Amino acid sequence: MRIPRRLLSVLRGEGPFLIAAHIDPDGDAIGSSLALSAALEAAGKKTFLYSRDPLPKYFAFLPGRKKFTARLREIVEEDPVLVLLDCNSPERAGIEGRRFRKAVVIDHHETAKEFGDVRWVDHTAAATGILVYRLVKALGGRITPEIATNLYTAISVDTGTFRYSNTSADVLRVSAELVDAGAEPNRIADHLYETWEYKRFRLLVAALNTIEVRDGVAVIHITKKMFRDTGTSAEDTEYFSNYPRMIGSIRIAVLLRELEQRGWKASLRSKGAVNVARIAERFGGGGHRNAAGFKTTSDLKTIKDTLFQAGRRSRR
Amino acid sequence: MRIPRRLLSVLRGEGPFLIAAHIDPDGDAIGSSLALSAALEAAGKKTFLYSRDPLPKYFAFLPGRKKFTARLREIVEEDPVLVLLDCNSPERAGIEGRRFRKAVVIDHHETAKEFGDVRWVDHTAAATGILVYRLVKALGGRITPEIATNLYTAISVDTGTFRYSNTSADVLRVSAELVDAGAEPNRIADHLYETWEYKRFRLLVAALNTIEVRDGVAVIHITKKMFRDTGTSAEDTEYFSNYPRMIGSIRIAVLLRELEQRGWKASLRSKGAVNVARIAERFGGGGHRNAAGFKTTSDLKTIKDTLFQAGRRSRR
Repeated sequence: MRIPRRLLSVLRGEGPFLIAAHIDPDGDAIGSSLALSAALEAAGKKTFLYSRDPLPKYFAFLPGRKKFTARLREIVEEDPVLVLLDCNSPERAGIEGRRFRKAVVIDHHETAKEFGDVRWVDHTAAATGILVYRLVKALGGRITPEIATNLYTAISVDTGTFRYSNTSADVLRVSAELVDAGAEPNRIADHLYETWEYKRFRLLVAALNTIEVRDGVAVIHITKKMFRDTGTSAEDTEYFSNYPRMIGSIRIAVLLRELEQRGWKASLRSKGAVNVARIAERFGGGGHRNAAGFKTTSDLKTIKDTLFQAGRRSRR
Repeated sequence: MRIPRRLLSVLRGEGPFLIAAHIDPDGDAIGSSLALSAALEAAGKKTFLYSRDPLPKYFAFLPGRKKFTARLREIVEEDPVLVLLDCNSPERAGIEGRRFRKAVVIDHHETAKEFGDVRWVDHTAAATGILVYRLVKALGGRITPEIATNLYTAISVDTGTFRYSNTSADVLRVSAELVDAGAEPNRIADHLYETWEYKRFRLLVAALNTIEVRDGVAVIHITKKMFRDTGTSAEDTEYFSNYPRMIGSIRIAVLLRELEQRGWKASLRSKGAVNVARIAERFGGGGHRNAAGFKTTSDLKTIKDTLFQAGRRSRR
């Protein structure tokens, strides 16, 4: 958790700073980036915020979000210091092939990458937002309501609003200080969890209707027709694979989504000790112990049978 | 938030203590009662735990839960001091018509009742669990892992695990201390949210299939046949009315449940400024601004039309 001294001196040094979130940015990447940008600007530095991909619409409430741009060229011309947030290689941020006079990495993902002149990678941190909180304090900055809202959102997203196993006393204590500084827990939770479009809700219900449960495995699926009927797309399915986890007997929850071209994409989530990465590997995919995925051109029945079989085996 | 001195002296005085939760006990009532009992017993006092109704099964993980009994007579014969927790009248605990040598009330509900020799009713507290936490500390007791788990659960249930508007910096700080003392956020959240029976999940999906959305109002309903088909009962519908709230455009979410005899029971939940108690009153029911209910013998179509009409009116 110790902040590298060189990190502080780089951030106290000459800007501008290009703060880059990873591709397909999540709440931790976006909130951490906005918070660091606000803190550096309050200290008189110039910052740019880069996201290759558009921000998901449910983060539209985050203060400062309009500072994000996907245009890199003009920024690079200003010779900025690169700050990678919530990722640790230029490829993950979608900015490979550029040269920067200095590059900084602030991340909490486990990694073998060695990119960056200064690296602060702490995989014991629940969120990059926690690291940025420490950083802003160490830089002597004030936690403004804008910074507090962004960091509280970052932490909320990466801890499932204090439900995942990375929720520590420290996480709760930092969050308490962010509330003191102006973050509003109820407003943020409403934005994160209660702003679904009706069509997305209808897609969820359609998916839940397909549920099949066997041997501790729950599988739901979404066909191309279901997307068409509800006017939704793949990005609307985020977090869907969490729903079957509500069932106590389920150890593996799977969402199968029919691909535009051919075949299916599977998202696997497990509870407890079951390692879904190993199941995904059998299909040529991969991931983490509790969250993994794969793509396959097998038919629905074959995929499901294989998953149920994996469930039986994982029980032993 | 100031603890009455007399409360401390009664609890330091002679037992035994009869700690009573309210009827249909929730996580705050159960967790607070178990925590206070453990703390008093650690101080050498004898305690009894009373709940008229059985504990909901998803609280079966709470340490000490087997101390709860529904048999009152044997306890009363020991001439205990009554401690009402998370409620403020003997009626709410289902123990009316008994006399006690002393009665104590510890609660956070707003109330006009004046029962009790010593009352600590603080409606600014997010949960009775917060009050019991202060109390145990003031009594000089150690927060054991057992007490921590019970109080963290109490606070989780009453704040929607830190999502409702009563989630303050103080709530997060107390929760952090409970984690330090042995409460496990992830394990508790799993018990609260991921232990559904499959039949209950199927009932939820069946209910969500009935959704009708109009004028900011979402209505779902459950018929007697749906209960029969899934082998479920009314107690399985708890929290169902929260699901339609996920939809951003919804300001009023309603669950209609067909009654065994005749008619329907409605549970209304609102977001923001909409007052559903006023809508419930029109049907002879009542409740709070954001959570209310009523029973009616009207038919489904009439009820829904009236609710949509109320939605249109509340928009103005």
